[in-house]
Amino acid sequence: MSTIAYQSLNPPSRILLGPGPSNIHPRVQIAMSALMVGHLDPYFISIMEDTTRLLRSVFRTQNELTFPVSGTGSAGMEAGFDNFLEAGDTAVIGSNGLFGERMVDNAQRTGAQVIPVTADWGRIIEPESIEKALKSQKKVKLLAVVQAETSTGALQPLLEIASLCKRYGALFMVDTVTSLGGHEVAVDDWGIDICYSGTQKCLSCPPGLAPFSVNAAAMAVLKSRTTKVKSWYLDLALLSNYWSTGTRFYHHTAPISMIYALHEALALVVEEGLEVRVKRHLRNGGALQAGLEAMGLTLHAQKGHRLSSLTTVGVPEGIDELKIRQQLLNEYSIEIGGGLGPLKGKIWRIGLMGHSSTAENVLLVLAALGKLLSKAGFRADTAAGEMAAIQLLS
Amino acid sequence: MSTIAYQSLNPPSRILLGPGPSNIHPRVQIAMSALMVGHLDPYFISIMEDTTRLLRSVFRTQNELTFPVSGTGSAGMEAGFDNFLEAGDTAVIGSNGLFGERMVDNAQRTGAQVIPVTADWGRIIEPESIEKALKSQKKVKLLAVVQAETSTGALQPLLEIASLCKRYGALFMVDTVTSLGGHEVAVDDWGIDICYSGTQKCLSCPPGLAPFSVNAAAMAVLKSRTTKVKSWYLDLALLSNYWSTGTRFYHHTAPISMIYALHEALALVVEEGLEVRVKRHLRNGGALQAGLEAMGLTLHAQKGHRLSSLTTVGVPEGIDELKIRQQLLNEYSIEIGGGLGPLKGKIWRIGLMGHSSTAENVLLVLAALGKLLSKAGFRADTAAGEMAAIQLLS
Repeated sequence: MSTIAYQSLNPPSRILLGPGPSNIHPRVQIAMSALMVGHLDPYFISIMEDTTRLLRSVFRTQNELTFPVSGTGSAGMEAGFDNFLEAGDTAVIGSNGLFGERMVDNAQRTGAQVIPVTADWGRIIEPESIEKALKSQKKVKLLAVVQAETSTGALQPLLEIASLCKRYGALFMVDTVTSLGGHEVAVDDWGIDICYSGTQKCLSCPPGLAPFSVNAAAMAVLKSRTTKVKSWYLDLALLSNYWSTGTRFYHHTAPISMIYALHEALALVVEEGLEVRVKRHLRNGGALQAGLEAMGLTLHAQKGHRLSSLTTVGVPEGIDELKIRQQLLNEYSIEIGGGLGPLKGKIWRIGLMGHSSTAENVLLVLAALGKLLSKAGFRADTAAGEMAAIQLLS
Repeated sequence: MSTIAYQSLNPPSRILLGPGPSNIHPRVQIAMSALMVGHLDPYFISIMEDTTRLLRSVFRTQNELTFPVSGTGSAGMEAGFDNFLEAGDTAVIGSNGLFGERMVDNAQRTGAQVIPVTADWGRIIEPESIEKALKSQKKVKLLAVVQAETSTGALQPLLEIASLCKRYGALFMVDTVTSLGGHEVAVDDWGIDICYSGTQKCLSCPPGLAPFSVNAAAMAVLKSRTTKVKSWYLDLALLSNYWSTGTRFYHHTAPISMIYALHEALALVVEEGLEVRVKRHLRNGGALQAGLEAMGLTLHAQKGHRLSSLTTVGVPEGIDELKIRQQLLNEYSIEIGGGLGPLKGKIWRIGLMGHSSTAENVLLVLAALGKLLSKAGFRADTAAGEMAAIQLLS
């Protein structure tokens, strides 16, 4: 055999303040290497049951079908569209960032007619535009929006849209990839029919699973399909036989270690308390945003609708966006994200998600960014930034 | 918040001799909890590059597009069909077990016409039947078979079928979920165009990824599609932009910890040497099979075409199949599998895969099974079984 070059595994210690993954709590890290058991082992079945219970609590739902899809957040998105749309259906989709655009692409692949409702990247989708789209069609089967647009930092309000869905008889699907476990998400109270998330953001679990929840009303609509779901892997009728208590009919082999990790990550959320956790994200995100503004930078996302889990901030005129990020990584071992699509080179994306959302990280990233910006010729008022942040942190 | 019941994570120590997952090498277990980094971190990019190199070596291919799909083995299957089939195409599929049937279901969901070529569960697909199916159609775009049928224990010979594919101009797709890293798999030498596997079998990595390899000829065929691939998540054109050296265009967030684990598991395969590893599987599987026969049991799969990674053995008349498995699990902490579909209640499936394929495990499972069968009223000649196995092990 020829010699294959490969290194010993030895990842650097990073402070993960990008758009995800976030840092992993040591308990979750340890869970990943817990002993392997079979996917039909009674022990693993009991962990599956725990996990669905914990997920229901974090999604704030009673939905029986609440489980992690065996893929990343994008697989959760696809599971939603693939099951609930088929040729002949019409969907209205909010598109105000990369993940909204991805939703449109995903939904179109089902053969359904898709009406995108757009807004500038950084702004929310106005309920009026949604209503206009709903009104324009004879029958809209599904309406989907992203609650936390990871590409822009905007936090989409959901209540008005939810009541529009009810009024026009459309299923309401929400992407909570960057909000679940960090922002308020209340599936039942808000009337969300289909909800999915990712594990590597505010849940601080490694990437690889997509928490998913669907209510009985949507499952009833599923039964009215005239064609088979395109994806066998994501076919909810098959998956519900595996994940529902009682049947446990073999579908595919569950990613056991990932589910161990999710179990532990959800336990941490429940132990902290959802409300306390949301407040922590709010406080740290608010402090970071106040700090950045006090330093002389401009926040990108629409005022009043900013995520606390992910802050977008404009790159000052004349500053090399990529170089600053590389310096943060190489000199401080801090990861932050750059802009995507039309925002490429124009913004930074600073995540404070889950285990990464700490007061220390707020101050650290302000100090490091301030220093690097000053060195690059932008007069950042780092002291004012830190002061503004500290006031909100204490 | 209401109180949620959940347990502390504390899995039992199992000897995993079922149809997968197999036991995990301690180095792979430790890799799972290596420090998290971002999916665009230069360090992670270097691990991706290592992983593709190692995968190429294990698949014995030079294929540029060789990477782990972010889902379990079944997602690898779906990636194959979803990309290479569309409405208007015709596929011929070998179906002699559960995974062959799953292939047929998967392929039909693409809208293509599917011609199944069947054989009894436990027997191989005869090349003659394949040729008859190929001849019967004007143009067959793709032919797919399972090399290692996990539901029956049959090992499908591939060379003749490969040359039929060449002759009839069909792409050749092979499922190597239960063979890669345990049986000989030679993607380039055998003329396999599309090949996928799973991580939790002979690679002894946790479940969650599907190693995948596709050659340039198949990628050229991909370009002739007239419709978009139904799955965004599994769209190879998008995935190749992320996994190809150079571009690394963001698609979805890779399951970082799982890729760490795969990196380590592949390193272990390369360190042992593919040939040595295949021989180890052959020796242990052969010893188990000789032992079971010497004990008085009947092997299920066709003679001369038996997997060494997974042995199927008939349940003797009057023996409660499930009870024996439960006793193995509860009294010996050994997991073996039961039969599926038409073989339910009729066979056991005993895996000796990757890190689980050891001489000790062969003797242990023979001893435990022999004792339980004798207690249940079947006169198993355990001593003869152990003797027969030991002769082949030494």
